[in-house]
Amino acid sequence: MYIGRVVGNVVATIKHPSLEARKLMLVRRLNLDDSLTSAYDIAVDDVQAGPGDRVLVLDEGSSARQILGGDNFPIRAVIIGIVDDVDVVK
Amino acid sequence: MYIGRVVGNVVATIKHPSLEARKLMLVRRLNLDDSLTSAYDIAVDDVQAGPGDRVLVLDEGSSARQILGGDNFPIRAVIIGIVDDVDVVK
Amino acid sequence: MYIGRVVGNVVATIKHPSLEARKLMLVRRLNLDDSLTSAYDIAVDDVQAGPGDRVLVLDEGSSARQILGGDNFPIRAVIIGIVDDVDVVK
Amino acid sequence: MYIGRVVGNVVATIKHPSLEARKLMLVRRLNLDDSLTSAYDIAVDDVQAGPGDRVLVLDEGSSARQILGGDNFPIRAVIIGIVDDVDVVK
Amino acid sequence: MYIGRVVGNVVATIKHPSLEARKLMLVRRLNLDDSLTSAYDIAVDDVQAGPGDRVLVLDEGSSARQILGGDNFPIRAVIIGIVDDVDVVK
Repeated sequence: MYIGRVVGNVVATIKHPSLEARKLMLVRRLNLDDSLTSAYDIAVDDVQAGPGDRVLVLDEGSSARQILGGDNFPIRAVIIGIVDDVDVVK
Repeated sequence: MYIGRVVGNVVATIKHPSLEARKLMLVRRLNLDDSLTSAYDIAVDDVQAGPGDRVLVLDEGSSARQILGGDNFPIRAVIIGIVDDVDVVK
Repeated sequence: MYIGRVVGNVVATIKHPSLEARKLMLVRRLNLDDSLTSAYDIAVDDVQAGPGDRVLVLDEGSSARQILGGDNFPIRAVIIGIVDDVDVVK
Repeated sequence: MYIGRVVGNVVATIKHPSLEARKLMLVRRLNLDDSLTSAYDIAVDDVQAGPGDRVLVLDEGSSARQILGGDNFPIRAVIIGIVDDVDVVK
Repeated sequence: MYIGRVVGNVVATIKHPSLEARKLMLVRRLNLDDSLTSAYDIAVDDVQAGPGDRVLVLDEGSSARQILGGDNFPIRAVIIGIVDDVDVVK
C-alpha cells in the first residue's frame, strides 16, 4: 500500500460491465513529505474519497478484488482508506 | 490501470493458439499532462481501439484474463477502455 | 523480501473490517549500507515491531495473506521479522 | 508483454526437474526504436528463438505457466513469439 | 529470473514457522557485464549456494512456493540455480 492524493478522475467508455458503475479516480503517489511524485494510478474508490483527499491505495490485484467483493472484478488498485494522519517518528 | 496512447501494433509468429486471433497493440504510457513516457506495453485490445486513441490499460494478469474470458489466456495487459476525458482538479 | 526501517505509522479511516484492528506501519526500504531510500511501503505488522526497528518486509500479496492467516485479507506487504544482523561478506 | 532481443543464454546447475530440459535464454528489453535497454530477463523459450532474434516476452508468472503447460512450472518470463514487424504509426 | 551474486545473509527473529529453518540469503542483482547493481533481494536458498556464488534468482511468489514445496510458504524470491556460465553472443 502507498499514500496517494486524489487529483481527479477518468471518464472512459468501458466494455466490462463490472467497472461501468464505478468511478475511476486518478491518484498520484505521494512522497513521505507529502509532495507529489509523477507516478499515478487509476484506482477504484471504495471509501467515497474526493479530489484533494489523501488516501491509502492498495496496489495488488487479488486484494483489490476482495475489497470490491468478487473474484471476477478486473482491477489492480483500489482506494481503501482516507488518511487521517501520517505519524513519522523524528 | 494507467492511461496510454495506442502507437501501433506488433506482428509476430506466435505459437499459443489463444493469442493468434488477437491484435497485439503497442501502447505507450502517458504522463498526466498527456506527454508520452518511454514505457510501453504490448496489450491485447478488448474495445476496438485504434492508433492514436487514448486508452485505459489494465496491467494485471488475473484481471486481464477475466476481461478476455478465460483462466487460460496468456496475457498481462489489456486495453479495457477508450478514455473520453481526464478531469484533473486544479 | 527486503530490509526496511520502521519510521512511523499511518492513521486512516478504513472500510474493510479485516484491516481495522491492525496497525499500519510506515516502512522505508534500506540500502545494504543501512541508509534510507525514498521508497516506502505501508505494511501490516506481524512481529510487534516499533519505530526505529530494522525489519524484514515481505512484499508479495499471496505470501502476506498466508502470514496473516487468511485468503481474504487485503494486503500486499507485511513485516515478517525483526532483523538482528545483516552479514555482508567483504 | 514487451519486445526483447535474445542476446545469449545461461548455463546453470538447477535443482528443479521441470527446468532442467529447458534452455534459459538471456533476453534484453528493447526500446521502441529497437535500441537495447539495460534491463534483461532470463526467459524460457517456447518458440525456438535464437541469438539475435527479436522476440515477444510474456513477463507474468501465471501466464508463463499456462504457455509451458502446467501449474507447477516455476517460471516468470517466457518467449512467446518471434516478432516479424513492429508497426509504429507516425 | 535474473542473475545475482550472493553477498551475505540476514539473521532475523521471525515468527512464521516455515521460514525459521531456512537461511535467508542476501543477493545483489547483477548487470550483464557481471557488475553489481544496487538492487537486492532477500531470497531463500534451494541449491546450497554460498557467499560469492553467482546464482539464478526466481523472483515470483507462486513459482517460489512451488520450488520450496508448498502453497503455504511465505516467500517471493528463491535461489533456484548456480550459474555456471553466461554466454552472451557478440
